[in-house]
Amino acid sequence: MSQLIPLPPSLEPFLALYLPRNGVPFVTLTYAQSLDAKIAAGPGLQTVISHLETKTMTHYLRSKHDAILVGLGTVLSDDPGLNCRYNAHRIRPVVVDPRRQWVYQGSRIDCTVASGDGLAPFIIIDAATEVPKAADAYLEAAGGRYVRLERAGGQFDWRRLLDALAEYGIGSVMVEGGAKVINSLLVYQSEGKGVVDSLIVTVGPVYLGDQGVGVSPMKNVWPSSVTWWSGVQDSVMCAKLE
Amino acid sequence: MSQLIPLPPSLEPFLALYLPRNGVPFVTLTYAQSLDAKIAAGPGLQTVISHLETKTMTHYLRSKHDAILVGLGTVLSDDPGLNCRYNAHRIRPVVVDPRRQWVYQGSRIDCTVASGDGLAPFIIIDAATEVPKAADAYLEAAGGRYVRLERAGGQFDWRRLLDALAEYGIGSVMVEGGAKVINSLLVYQSEGKGVVDSLIVTVGPVYLGDQGVGVSPMKNVWPSSVTWWSGVQDSVMCAKLE
Repeated sequence: MSQLIPLPPSLEPFLALYLPRNGVPFVTLTYAQSLDAKIAAGPGLQTVISHLETKTMTHYLRSKHDAILVGLGTVLSDDPGLNCRYNAHRIRPVVVDPRRQWVYQGSRIDCTVASGDGLAPFIIIDAATEVPKAADAYLEAAGGRYVRLERAGGQFDWRRLLDALAEYGIGSVMVEGGAKVINSLLVYQSEGKGVVDSLIVTVGPVYLGDQGVGVSPMKNVWPSSVTWWSGVQDSVMCAKLE
Repeated sequence: MSQLIPLPPSLEPFLALYLPRNGVPFVTLTYAQSLDAKIAAGPGLQTVISHLETKTMTHYLRSKHDAILVGLGTVLSDDPGLNCRYNAHRIRPVVVDPRRQWVYQGSRIDCTVASGDGLAPFIIIDAATEVPKAADAYLEAAGGRYVRLERAGGQFDWRRLLDALAEYGIGSVMVEGGAKVINSLLVYQSEGKGVVDSLIVTVGPVYLGDQGVGVSPMKNVWPSSVTWWSGVQDSVMCAKLE
């Protein structure tokens, strides 16, 4: 048997994208935007962009995933239910909230859980963030949990975050927003660290104006395998991100 | 016969939108944008966003109009031909260039005219802008002209601009860009001063990134009568602006 030499350091990242990603969830990035690429008319404003049929599509998509992931901005501004109203599927909300600025108790998700219409969230916090015992116990009693992760440069690494979710049996994640999460994930993808499997964007035929909250990553991103579907009001793009 | 009283001053603008617009051209506002509502990857960068079939559509649309209107930024950055390569239709370029910063002689439009493949432009300039006699004579000899208009607050009034074009027999105008012209026209429309009859937007499935040149008006604009067409790569929205 011939001897092995140390693996050239650059080979490992080069090959990573072409090797099986054991236990990494399937990720769908999906959101609705206006023609001028705004997801809301202003910070903290919940804005109806899409038609009821594409809203229904969102719940259908949720029924095909184990978890919905949103950022802190979304829970603070929208206080969303984050459940699935299609086929009575039970989906796990995942909230990325490094410094634990969102209060779960009394939120709409809490009410949804209490009424038996949804699962308690997994809340991703920075490893250094302290959680009061009572809050921890309250979330655990509801069936949720705080998931602690290290950040680098103020950011969670998406791959590690998804690995962490996989450890709790989550095999598929639908990322719904807000703008910071979407832009961050698109940039992460454009840097060759592919974690997004599918991209589904609804375009509503309205201009929300230049004070709106926009989706536009810091770099070019070129989706592939693009197809469009047209509804009574909106156009929906499905694509791959490679 | 009973006496007439002076017309209440507010009645005239109130009624204007519901009265025939004698001699005002039909206006189609059309452009191609990325998913993140950019029409170019950066200022002065010409960026391919749409598929060849939607580029072909643009020339088909040009064949249905008397004139193409663009702003100064577009002629400076793209040096476009602004002719029609569909059905050998001859279309009039109109360039909005208040201070006459664009040099026609030697431009691509000039070459297109010289080779018999297009009409010389109408260049809209501020009434106070001086034109050297030689430049004026050169443009007139080619069949073009400088059109002088007053500005208010540094802006031409779109309705007056279109009235001026109508005086030269232009019955339909396709407005193609750039971003300043598009945003200005959308805002003008949102203020109830309707001059746009049709809106045709091609959405290409790419993110050009947050350094791109974006289309997003200063106010909300809600198109109506929306329909979408899906091509092999792009989605095209047709709508009315009311």
